[in-house]
Amino acid sequence: MIQTAVLGYGTVGSGVVKVIETNHDSIEKKAGVDLGVKYVLDLRDFPGDPVQKKIVHDFDVILSDPEIRIVVETMGGLEPAYTFTKKALEAGKSVCTSNKELVARHGTELLQTAREHNASYMFEASCGGGIPIIRPLRTCLCADVIDEITGILNGTTNYILTKMIEEGREFSDVLREAQQKGYAERNPEADVEGHDACRKIAILSSLAYGKRVDFTDVYTEGITKITPADIQYAKAMGRTIKLLAFSKKEGEQVTAMVAPYLVDKEDPLASVNGVFNAIFVHGNMLGDAMFYGQGAGKEATASAVVADVIEEAQVLGRSVMSSWDPEKLVLTDVSGTEKQFFVRAKGEASEAEKVFGPVKLVQAGLEGEYGFVTERMSEGAFLKKAGEFGAMISMLRLRDKSKAE
Amino acid sequence: MIQTAVLGYGTVGSGVVKVIETNHDSIEKKAGVDLGVKYVLDLRDFPGDPVQKKIVHDFDVILSDPEIRIVVETMGGLEPAYTFTKKALEAGKSVCTSNKELVARHGTELLQTAREHNASYMFEASCGGGIPIIRPLRTCLCADVIDEITGILNGTTNYILTKMIEEGREFSDVLREAQQKGYAERNPEADVEGHDACRKIAILSSLAYGKRVDFTDVYTEGITKITPADIQYAKAMGRTIKLLAFSKKEGEQVTAMVAPYLVDKEDPLASVNGVFNAIFVHGNMLGDAMFYGQGAGKEATASAVVADVIEEAQVLGRSVMSSWDPEKLVLTDVSGTEKQFFVRAKGEASEAEKVFGPVKLVQAGLEGEYGFVTERMSEGAFLKKAGEFGAMISMLRLRDKSKAE
Repeated sequence: MIQTAVLGYGTVGSGVVKVIETNHDSIEKKAGVDLGVKYVLDLRDFPGDPVQKKIVHDFDVILSDPEIRIVVETMGGLEPAYTFTKKALEAGKSVCTSNKELVARHGTELLQTAREHNASYMFEASCGGGIPIIRPLRTCLCADVIDEITGILNGTTNYILTKMIEEGREFSDVLREAQQKGYAERNPEADVEGHDACRKIAILSSLAYGKRVDFTDVYTEGITKITPADIQYAKAMGRTIKLLAFSKKEGEQVTAMVAPYLVDKEDPLASVNGVFNAIFVHGNMLGDAMFYGQGAGKEATASAVVADVIEEAQVLGRSVMSSWDPEKLVLTDVSGTEKQFFVRAKGEASEAEKVFGPVKLVQAGLEGEYGFVTERMSEGAFLKKAGEFGAMISMLRLRDKSKAE
Repeated sequence: MIQTAVLGYGTVGSGVVKVIETNHDSIEKKAGVDLGVKYVLDLRDFPGDPVQKKIVHDFDVILSDPEIRIVVETMGGLEPAYTFTKKALEAGKSVCTSNKELVARHGTELLQTAREHNASYMFEASCGGGIPIIRPLRTCLCADVIDEITGILNGTTNYILTKMIEEGREFSDVLREAQQKGYAERNPEADVEGHDACRKIAILSSLAYGKRVDFTDVYTEGITKITPADIQYAKAMGRTIKLLAFSKKEGEQVTAMVAPYLVDKEDPLASVNGVFNAIFVHGNMLGDAMFYGQGAGKEATASAVVADVIEEAQVLGRSVMSSWDPEKLVLTDVSGTEKQFFVRAKGEASEAEKVFGPVKLVQAGLEGEYGFVTERMSEGAFLKKAGEFGAMISMLRLRDKSKAE
């Protein structure tokens, strides 16, 4: 039996214990590994729960037990997750995690530490919850040069936008309901301001392009300013609104961005609704591919963590996780990237063309305002014109059709 | 350098050579393998093409060259592909293929041969072209008990149905156009009668459930009887028509089927259009997941073949491919499976309820006929009632909503 220790018996940690116990026999049959959970580290006790006999409060028990070859870190946050992960890797124990904050912040260093100690640092569940994406990028798409990753990477914001679109409701109203249902945190900032999606696209981009993408460099906008009026215009254009996190590579230039986009109804990303997530990938040979599934949730996320544990159990003592160059990938400023923009404005529609050049008007039947779509122009040029224009109520970017279509 | 030989310089074979040559450096950087193509086996010569210097006409040249560790079989068909594959595996050379006929017919035996000679028989590209599905099933979803796979697994039929739906055209008319464009073969039977999708779902089901699923046991209907009138009713129901290939496991019972289904517009499979394919998977922990991409095409399929070649190159001398039990999985007869049915009928709408019990009428504005949807009932019960009814013009099955919704 290969023994593991789970750090943190919260949502994902308890899910990991459940997956390993429920599917133990199926895992042994399919993957040839007999997995056990020997310890669960938590500050709390769980009297009456079968997990209680595995609970330890001292990480050193785990660290000093040579039988523990794989540590599952599902504590979240930076500390003590970072210290525990570092110590486990230095002791030659592999670590599998769902902790996107830690991977985004210290992933480069922890991958390096793992390699130096013939261990692996694996984090399939850090991006897209249960959706297999990191392993496919590493193993299935390894014959390809990846030039685009675009994801709906945050379930909370996708749930909120879906509800706003389906029911015509205000952001704050839907957010409150999502908080009551437990789909949004009491402090929702990391989700609704796009920070969570930003960390995930930085991790995926580091893997895809082979150099460290610093999440603090990624231009990020959230969904807090989206209104039912914006949605009316989107519908009039045959589009929907999605919070997209993407990076694109052209030649040696990589741009990355998190922002709400107008997505064509025919785009496969448009039908990703509710708490579902999806990740679209374009490869130079593969063309378009998309991975769809539950971006969060106890069992789905735990399933992804345990897939890492199984791979690790099969190759113990070898470092299998791909890595990226620690040198920072300097992102190209988004101001140079071109796209079409949608603008809501006050006043006379004839004013728009004077500033923006040829535009296409959008009729959504709203009083005292109008909407239009510009031709393709750079972010920089758009912002300059928007400054001159003065009548803008709000703006949204348009996602291009995917390349293969 | 790890040397490979490609059998067959057709669409996929030439794609494999292109992928290995175009992305050689990226593959070496990402996967740490320096791949080369030493031989290309083809009956033809390609004077003037750089591939000519690699062309051999005699398979024994490849078989007897110890430098060749990996053979890529992209000939298609059963012979001589079977004989060459068997001989290569017996010589300890791994084989990577896109040949679904061969995998569906002799996969169980060839996997066994591979294992006996510490080689691998890999066939990512045999199902879903460029879509990563076999490796994800093997490695990413290995913590899950899979209980459903439903795929749009044939690009030709999906293209034809998409065109029929978008343009209101007849099957035969769109088929002719697809043949002219090269999207359908001159003899289109394997595609339009569902045989191709049937082979693919048999392969995927064997992997997912761990026992050999014989494709000849899978109940299969094609799309040749679909008419513009059926499509009008589908639209009236907020649904679309897709040729689905699926298998479901409940307890120890597995059913499998290929047939055109009415799919709800909100279902993620509904927006898979044109030559795209998608594979929906449900796991007991993961919930719903879907893999989407190009189900055919030279570079996309070749990209999947080369991903196999890379994995094989990383583990030379070990047999890594999962296998399944050679014992046949006896499929449960589809007549016991329950679903809702849509029926087009002549005569008086009041007749329907007399035979089928409570039904929901569907208005599509067609003269001299009406449509209705039954409650859930078994295939067997439906067929019995349909026999009594006598007024049926056509029927289609309804796909249930996915479980997580």
